[in-house]
Amino acid sequence: MKNERVIVIGGSSGIGKAVAIESFKQGAQVTVTGLTEKNFGDLKSGYPNIAMAALDINDEPSVNTFFNGFDSIDHIYIAAGSTKLGSILDGTVDVHMAPIDLRLKGGIHVIRAAAKKINEGGSICFTGGLSTDRPVAGAWVSGIGTAAAEQLARVMALELAPIRFNAVSPGWTDTPMWDAVLGESKEEVFQQVAEKQLVKRLAKPQEVAQAVLFLMTNKSVTGEIIHVDGGARLI
Amino acid sequence: MKNERVIVIGGSSGIGKAVAIESFKQGAQVTVTGLTEKNFGDLKSGYPNIAMAALDINDEPSVNTFFNGFDSIDHIYIAAGSTKLGSILDGTVDVHMAPIDLRLKGGIHVIRAAAKKINEGGSICFTGGLSTDRPVAGAWVSGIGTAAAEQLARVMALELAPIRFNAVSPGWTDTPMWDAVLGESKEEVFQQVAEKQLVKRLAKPQEVAQAVLFLMTNKSVTGEIIHVDGGARLI
Amino acid sequence: MKNERVIVIGGSSGIGKAVAIESFKQGAQVTVTGLTEKNFGDLKSGYPNIAMAALDINDEPSVNTFFNGFDSIDHIYIAAGSTKLGSILDGTVDVHMAPIDLRLKGGIHVIRAAAKKINEGGSICFTGGLSTDRPVAGAWVSGIGTAAAEQLARVMALELAPIRFNAVSPGWTDTPMWDAVLGESKEEVFQQVAEKQLVKRLAKPQEVAQAVLFLMTNKSVTGEIIHVDGGARLI
Amino acid sequence: MKNERVIVIGGSSGIGKAVAIESFKQGAQVTVTGLTEKNFGDLKSGYPNIAMAALDINDEPSVNTFFNGFDSIDHIYIAAGSTKLGSILDGTVDVHMAPIDLRLKGGIHVIRAAAKKINEGGSICFTGGLSTDRPVAGAWVSGIGTAAAEQLARVMALELAPIRFNAVSPGWTDTPMWDAVLGESKEEVFQQVAEKQLVKRLAKPQEVAQAVLFLMTNKSVTGEIIHVDGGARLI
Repeated sequence: MKNERVIVIGGSSGIGKAVAIESFKQGAQVTVTGLTEKNFGDLKSGYPNIAMAALDINDEPSVNTFFNGFDSIDHIYIAAGSTKLGSILDGTVDVHMAPIDLRLKGGIHVIRAAAKKINEGGSICFTGGLSTDRPVAGAWVSGIGTAAAEQLARVMALELAPIRFNAVSPGWTDTPMWDAVLGESKEEVFQQVAEKQLVKRLAKPQEVAQAVLFLMTNKSVTGEIIHVDGGARLI
Repeated sequence: MKNERVIVIGGSSGIGKAVAIESFKQGAQVTVTGLTEKNFGDLKSGYPNIAMAALDINDEPSVNTFFNGFDSIDHIYIAAGSTKLGSILDGTVDVHMAPIDLRLKGGIHVIRAAAKKINEGGSICFTGGLSTDRPVAGAWVSGIGTAAAEQLARVMALELAPIRFNAVSPGWTDTPMWDAVLGESKEEVFQQVAEKQLVKRLAKPQEVAQAVLFLMTNKSVTGEIIHVDGGARLI
Repeated sequence: MKNERVIVIGGSSGIGKAVAIESFKQGAQVTVTGLTEKNFGDLKSGYPNIAMAALDINDEPSVNTFFNGFDSIDHIYIAAGSTKLGSILDGTVDVHMAPIDLRLKGGIHVIRAAAKKINEGGSICFTGGLSTDRPVAGAWVSGIGTAAAEQLARVMALELAPIRFNAVSPGWTDTPMWDAVLGESKEEVFQQVAEKQLVKRLAKPQEVAQAVLFLMTNKSVTGEIIHVDGGARLI
Repeated sequence: MKNERVIVIGGSSGIGKAVAIESFKQGAQVTVTGLTEKNFGDLKSGYPNIAMAALDINDEPSVNTFFNGFDSIDHIYIAAGSTKLGSILDGTVDVHMAPIDLRLKGGIHVIRAAAKKINEGGSICFTGGLSTDRPVAGAWVSGIGTAAAEQLARVMALELAPIRFNAVSPGWTDTPMWDAVLGESKEEVFQQVAEKQLVKRLAKPQEVAQAVLFLMTNKSVTGEIIHVDGGARLI
C-alpha cells in the first residue's frame, strides 16, 4: 500500500481506527474522518502523520466538500455505523431509519463524491455485519442496515466496475461501540458471548482490519463480503 | 382461505391483481389498494365484491387511517413496487431512493399499522425480485430495493413471530409495469428474454400469485423467499 | 395434476407418503416406491389405486429397470433420505458416506434413468434440509447430504433445462423417521423443539407436501429450494 | 507464520504451489504433496527447503501414513481438485463422481488423519469454486464438487471447533490446470473470459493464495468462503 491514498470514514475508534493504523504502517497516506474533532484525541497523539477531519456522511454537501480535497484516491473504508435497539412498533420511523440511512445513504453519498477519483485497482469497502445472516429480535434495524451495506457492495461492483466494492461483516468485536450499547453489563455479556463462539473469544478490531486490507489489496476480489465473526453466523 | 381477510397493497394490476383475484376465488374477503381510484377500472367491473381503496404507503398517516378500518386481518401482500434506471452518479439521491423507500419504509408503515391486527397463523408477504441475487448495472436501485424487502421479511419473521413474514421474488414477469419501463421495445425485449430463460418464457402474474398464496396458507413457512423467475437467477 | 404421472421415491411414510396422497387426490396417477414391500401396509389399504413398488435407489440397475416401466413421466419427488449421527473422527468413511450417497448418487441414478421421459413442464424434486443452512455438530453427514441434494437441483436446472429441478428443505417435521432416530425421547425432544420455533410447533408432513406440489405445478419455478421449517434456519 | 507447520495437499502447481511458496516466504515449515514425485521438478529446484511427498488423498491408508509423519500441524490447504466436463446422461456414474469424491472424500480423509494434530488457532482450508454459485451446463460435476467442499468447511467448523475450517473459491484463474482442460483454445478462451470479468482479467494463483493465507492467519475467521473471482459470480 506504499504511498496509496486511503480514506477511512469513521476511523476515530474501533475497526476504522485499526484500518487506519494498519494502512499507515504499510505505507499508505491515510486520512481519517470522525463525527467531531474531539474524537481524534487518542489517534492524534499516537499517529501525527495520519490526517484527520470531521465529517458527517449523512450530509451530502459536506461529503462533497471533503472529497473535493483529494485529486485521486486508492481505497476508502467506511466504518461509520451505528445501531439502535427497539421494537418496530414503538417510536417513530425516522428514528428507526437513522442507522439504516447512515449505512445506505451515507455510503451512496461517498460513492457519488469519490467514484471518479478512484485509481485503477482501487476499491471501496463497506461495513456489514452478523445481523445480515443472523438477525435477532429487537435489533431489526441492524439486520436491515448491514444487509443494505452488503448489497450496496454487490450492486456497485457491477454498476461501477472496474472499481472494486466489498464489505466486511464483523461479528462480536471488542470495540468501544459496545461501551455505549451495553454499558456496565459489557464485561458480563462479552464473557457469555465468547463462551458461545466457535473460536471461544470475540474478534479484535485488528482482525477485522486485516480483512479490510485484504479486500483493498487483492485486485481480484470484488462484490465480496468477508465475515470475521468467529463463526457466529453458524451457531 | 374461506372468509379470511386478505389485503393487497398495490393490487390494481399485475401480480397484486392476480393475488387479489385468486384469493377472492378461494373465498377470502379481499381489499385491494392502488395509488388512485382510477386504476381500478378493470378490476371493479369484473370483481364487484373485491373492495378497493386509494392508498399511498409512502404516507404513514394514510396507512394508519386505512388500517383503522379493519379489526382483524389474516394476510397482507404488498405488491407495490417501482423501479428506476440510471447511474448512481447522476441525478439526486432522493430520486434514486424513492423506489427503495417505497419498498422499505412503505413496508415498515404497513407493519406498524397492521401487526397487532394479524390473526393467528396470519402473514405479511413482501415483493423482492431477481435483482437481489442478480443485480445489473444501471438497475442498482432495484438491487437495493428488492434486497431490502427480502431482508425485511427475514428480520420481521424473528421480530414479530409468530406472525409469518415472507417475500416473493419474481423474475421477468409479463405485467403492465413493463409497458412503462420498456415502452415500444417491450415485445422485442420480452422475446429475447424468454429465449434466455431456462423455461423459455416469462412468468405469468398468476404464477407469482400462486407463490404468494402458498406463502399465505402454509403455516410452517416464515422468513422465506420464493423465486418465481424461470431460473433466471442461475443463468 | 389431472392424469399426470407422478412418481414418489421413498413414499411409504412421512413426507413422501403425504406427497403421494395429495397428488393422488388432485387426480394424478401415482406410483410410490419404498425399500421393501412390507412398508406399504398402511398406504395399500387406504389407497389401493396408488401403485407401489420396492426400489433401492442406491442400485442403478434396479433404478433403470423400475423406470423402464414408464413411457412418460410428469413429476418425480425423491423423499428417500436418511441420516446418521456421529463424529467424523469415528467409524469408517463408508458408513458416514452412506446417507450422503443415498441423496446424491441416488438422485443421480434417478435423473439418468428418467430424464428423457419427463414431459414438457415436468419436474424432479429432491429433499434437502435445515442442516444445509444450519448444520449442527454431530450431524455433519446431514449437513453435507442435504446441501448436495439442493445443489443437485440447481446444477440440473441448468444442465437439463427445460426440465425443472427443485428441492424442498424441511425443518423439524413430525414424521415416523424420528421414531428411529430419537426413540423414547421423541416426545420430549419434540416439545422442546416446538417451543423454540418461530411458529411454536413442528411442521406436518402435509405442509412439506404442499411445497412439493407447488414446485411440481408452478411452471416458472426451477432451481429453487423452499424451506418449510417454521423459520428454524433463522433462530 | 514463522515456524508454523503448513501442509499443502496438491501443491505441485497452480494455486497450491503459490500457497506453498508464500507460506515458506513467511517463515513456515512447508510440506507439499502431489500425485507423483515427478510433478515437483519445478518447485524442487527453486525451493529445496520445501518438503515434498507423493500422495493420493483418494486413498485413506496413504493419507494416514502421510500424516503419521507429523506430530503437530498448524495449517492445511487442500488444493487437490479436478473437473470433468460432460452430460450427466452419458458415461458411468463412477467416472462422474471421481472429481466429487476427490474433493469430498479426499477432504474427509485428511480431516480424519490430521484433526487431532492441529495446534491451537490452526485451520484447514478447502478449495471450492465459482461453480457453487454459478454452475454451468456441462460442468455439473464441478457444481456439486465445489459446493461439497465449501459445505464441508461449514459443517466442520461446527463439528471440530475450535479448529477453523474455511474454503477459497477461485473463479477463472490462470493456472496450468486449464492447459489440460482447454488445450489449444486456452489463449482464446482466456481472452474472452477476461473481457467479461468486472476486473477485466483472470486471477493470478498468487491472489488466490493471498486469500488462503488470510484464512490461515486470521484467528477469528471460520466457516468462511472467500471468493477470488474478479466478481465472476455476479455477472
